[in-house]
Amino acid sequence: MGKTIAEKILARTAGLPELKPGDMIMAYVDRTMIVDYKVQEHYNTFKELGITKVFDPEKVVTVLEHHVPPATQFHADAHVIARKFAKEYSVKFGEIGRHGICHTYFIENGYARPGELVVGEDSHTCTYGAFNVAARGLGPDEMSYVLATGKTWFKVPETIRFVLNGKLPSMSYAKDMILHIAGKYGTDVALYKSVEFVGEAAHALPLSGRMTIANMGIEIGAKFAIFEADEKTLEYVKARTDEAFVPVTSDEDADFSAIYTIDVSKIGPQIACPFSVSNVKPVEEVEGQVIQQFFIGSCTNGGLDDLRVAAKILKGQKVFPESRLIVIPTSMKIYEQALSEGLLNIFIKAGAMVEGPTCGLCAGDRGILGKGETGLYSNNRNFKGRQGKEAEVYLASPATVAASAIHGKITDPRKYAHCFD
Amino acid sequence: MGKTIAEKILARTAGLPELKPGDMIMAYVDRTMIVDYKVQEHYNTFKELGITKVFDPEKVVTVLEHHVPPATQFHADAHVIARKFAKEYSVKFGEIGRHGICHTYFIENGYARPGELVVGEDSHTCTYGAFNVAARGLGPDEMSYVLATGKTWFKVPETIRFVLNGKLPSMSYAKDMILHIAGKYGTDVALYKSVEFVGEAAHALPLSGRMTIANMGIEIGAKFAIFEADEKTLEYVKARTDEAFVPVTSDEDADFSAIYTIDVSKIGPQIACPFSVSNVKPVEEVEGQVIQQFFIGSCTNGGLDDLRVAAKILKGQKVFPESRLIVIPTSMKIYEQALSEGLLNIFIKAGAMVEGPTCGLCAGDRGILGKGETGLYSNNRNFKGRQGKEAEVYLASPATVAASAIHGKITDPRKYAHCFD
Repeated sequence: MGKTIAEKILARTAGLPELKPGDMIMAYVDRTMIVDYKVQEHYNTFKELGITKVFDPEKVVTVLEHHVPPATQFHADAHVIARKFAKEYSVKFGEIGRHGICHTYFIENGYARPGELVVGEDSHTCTYGAFNVAARGLGPDEMSYVLATGKTWFKVPETIRFVLNGKLPSMSYAKDMILHIAGKYGTDVALYKSVEFVGEAAHALPLSGRMTIANMGIEIGAKFAIFEADEKTLEYVKARTDEAFVPVTSDEDADFSAIYTIDVSKIGPQIACPFSVSNVKPVEEVEGQVIQQFFIGSCTNGGLDDLRVAAKILKGQKVFPESRLIVIPTSMKIYEQALSEGLLNIFIKAGAMVEGPTCGLCAGDRGILGKGETGLYSNNRNFKGRQGKEAEVYLASPATVAASAIHGKITDPRKYAHCFD
Repeated sequence: MGKTIAEKILARTAGLPELKPGDMIMAYVDRTMIVDYKVQEHYNTFKELGITKVFDPEKVVTVLEHHVPPATQFHADAHVIARKFAKEYSVKFGEIGRHGICHTYFIENGYARPGELVVGEDSHTCTYGAFNVAARGLGPDEMSYVLATGKTWFKVPETIRFVLNGKLPSMSYAKDMILHIAGKYGTDVALYKSVEFVGEAAHALPLSGRMTIANMGIEIGAKFAIFEADEKTLEYVKARTDEAFVPVTSDEDADFSAIYTIDVSKIGPQIACPFSVSNVKPVEEVEGQVIQQFFIGSCTNGGLDDLRVAAKILKGQKVFPESRLIVIPTSMKIYEQALSEGLLNIFIKAGAMVEGPTCGLCAGDRGILGKGETGLYSNNRNFKGRQGKEAEVYLASPATVAASAIHGKITDPRKYAHCFD
């Protein structure tokens, strides 16, 4: 019997060529990422247990990003400890304003390498799946053990496949694809399963689009959310690392517990309505919903391609006077590029507020919605209470957010298709 | 007996030509400014008391700025009420990201007019004194009364004068002048007194420099902190308003309770050390003090001239790796201009984090310092607990902050004088 991508990666990292779904294994991770206030827990644990080094300083990445610059004493003090941890244990460190959101920092530095196993201290660590990585979020107790030993346990997951066929229509994006999947198949379709996104429409996506989809793998329950590596992947990764890596694909006779085939040519702009990522409707059904606050950013959709799309729509336009738009580029590299391409200038002229790279509104760190307010955001989650106690948040692609910001209400982005002629 | 600027402005607005220091008067204000979460108090008061309109909607300016985008539910909800107040009572309104810090918004829109009386809901309302305005912060209870009636009470203040002679040395700025004054004369030298800044060095200052000094008038206790209007003032204001205004100067035989003459040519770069604005030392005495966080921004020193100076120093340089620099332009207009001049690009390339216009670190709204950390900021206050529970904040000019950021410790900006050749 052949193997899936996840099975192959876990077999290699566990040193168990014959593993199968359901097996409990210990695997050596290829790299880890730890973030923000959680780092102080590891610091305290290491001190309490007398652990004097991490398993491999080259393989541990620490980033400050959810709460920067910190708005609370708690986070400010935690950052001090995180810096101390990074220095004392000589691990890679992403300082405030120097890098940006952890996932982009990780990817931009060539740490997301095809065929590898990564665990990170953020639920959206699965983002690296865009680069053929089996990547997964972990809680802090488990992570302390990983930091000390380099290994952690997995129950080998079953694998399901989404075969993405056809060509996305104009003004539909990767975000619409994953929202469509969440809406159609639910937030539990991939619970404790590895997901593979394959097919011509998967390969047609730019890496940024694959990142959006892999990122939201966790929103459909996935343990891993993995794309196959192709020329785009290899070109990007090879430009960022000299180390060898071996991309992995599933064998033809691998055992998938389910295969879902989707014709993406039928996917128009999608909206996830409050309070679930799976409460998805075509934009036509919620057009006109009044929105006070718009957000383009987050590890899901704050990348350069996203900012370019939003800028095309917003060029020469103004944000609706009674609404507000906040734009937060995902990383400092993206911020700098967006600055030099004139994208930030377009946002500013439109009346948007542009902030330095951070999770921002997605983490409920700033831009909290007030009583009775609604938001239309490009990020990954709209859970009740996440971005304001009673706030109702809708999720969409940056194109839909940008088009809607002009009108102060949910608007079909296809009205702005001419901006892309 | 002749009159001082404050006496003349209060005489006109109180309709009492013969007033003198110590008199208790009621004066009609020319304009008011209300901000942030305090606006909800007026809204609630108006509703409770059945007040259906403000004294003059054209003369009331509302701005969201201290806490934007809001990091707490309290501020988010308060913003909702502030918008409601602005809409229901038809007053001027500055939305998140659209304008910036209230004082700059006020000035940029031509509301700070020579010879006028302004009360505002922020202690640094005295900033407008740069434009020959008698301007003063008020508490919310008093402000509700102003909003309903257009008037408030004053005890007519005595007036003191700072006569600023000579020419500022290279790499010394208005900030160094006011820090020198605070250091030499103390934070109570002007308690319940109107201060006039006159002399050749006052007129030599750009308007931005006068704003820095008037802004910090409150830090030496001043009721008002007023400059004379000159050609620079008139050119700026006339470009922003068609309404008539009458600049005011003190009569030659006016009665000043004190006159302090200062030779500014002797003022080198100054540092206010923790935890008082008057704990001022020449930079030489604190050089080498390690600093974790640098801040260029606030209504005191986040203007275009400030950003230009900082950019000249930071061009091609890097922020010290173990430190961080946060830059927050004061207003959206300044942000936009700094963007188009390439200043923001210089900051970004140096490794700084640039945020949208807001009070930011000065208000303790973000960038809180952690335990044991120190900051060197360009803002106006370094009170204990204001920007972090145990944080030690030093104050300086943007030039000193920029030069120091390169080294991660307090550094004499004169080392970078060559950048201005």
